[in-house]
Amino acid sequence: MDPDQVARAFVEHYYSTFDTNRGGLGNLYQDGSMLTFEGQKIQGSQNIVAKLTALPFQQCQHIISTVDCQPSGPVGGMLVFVSGNLQLAGEQHPLKFSQMFHLMPTPQGSFYVLNDIFRLNYA
Amino acid sequence: MDPDQVARAFVEHYYSTFDTNRGGLGNLYQDGSMLTFEGQKIQGSQNIVAKLTALPFQQCQHIISTVDCQPSGPVGGMLVFVSGNLQLAGEQHPLKFSQMFHLMPTPQGSFYVLNDIFRLNYA
Repeated sequence: MDPDQVARAFVEHYYSTFDTNRGGLGNLYQDGSMLTFEGQKIQGSQNIVAKLTALPFQQCQHIISTVDCQPSGPVGGMLVFVSGNLQLAGEQHPLKFSQMFHLMPTPQGSFYVLNDIFRLNYA
Repeated sequence: MDPDQVARAFVEHYYSTFDTNRGGLGNLYQDGSMLTFEGQKIQGSQNIVAKLTALPFQQCQHIISTVDCQPSGPVGGMLVFVSGNLQLAGEQHPLKFSQMFHLMPTPQGSFYVLNDIFRLNYA
């Protein structure tokens, strides 16, 4: 499968899960996974999901603008770089965001998120 | 040395070189390095520098807003995620940008850029 297709499929799955069932994101992380969310460092699937589900908004929609991907080196990983808009329920204007994921292959032929860095770009 | 300090030192070196002597960036890339610049994929130090020096502006200044970093896995790499403003000479308003670097260790104890993804966030 084309890496760009894999990246886009991952991104669609990630944000549709985020927007409809945030707790379901736990399956995409493992114990060694890292999230840096607006500068705050969090490690491990359980802590990451706790952070994401505790964000101070209930309903949101991610609207993707761009998805770029590159292979990350010898161990079969993939870097995915996303820019887009985050529309919070009840807010008039969306927030711009950028996010990068480092996906690593699992023995089952799937991917998990090893690295995740998220930033809002206050426009 | 603290990874955050390494990341910040790299970022300062990278953008001051970009803003004063773009051709000097070639030393930071290798033949296997990849740049995705606004969706265009370029490989190899020589091609990357050719792209960066051919950008349609002569003078610019990168003003960094945030630098995040995480270790990228078992081979000693480091992910660096940057957001900031790009001020072009003669333009009134700066452009917002996001950029990620995947730094890999060299045998000499330094780092080179394996992956580089750059995007403007048209604000």
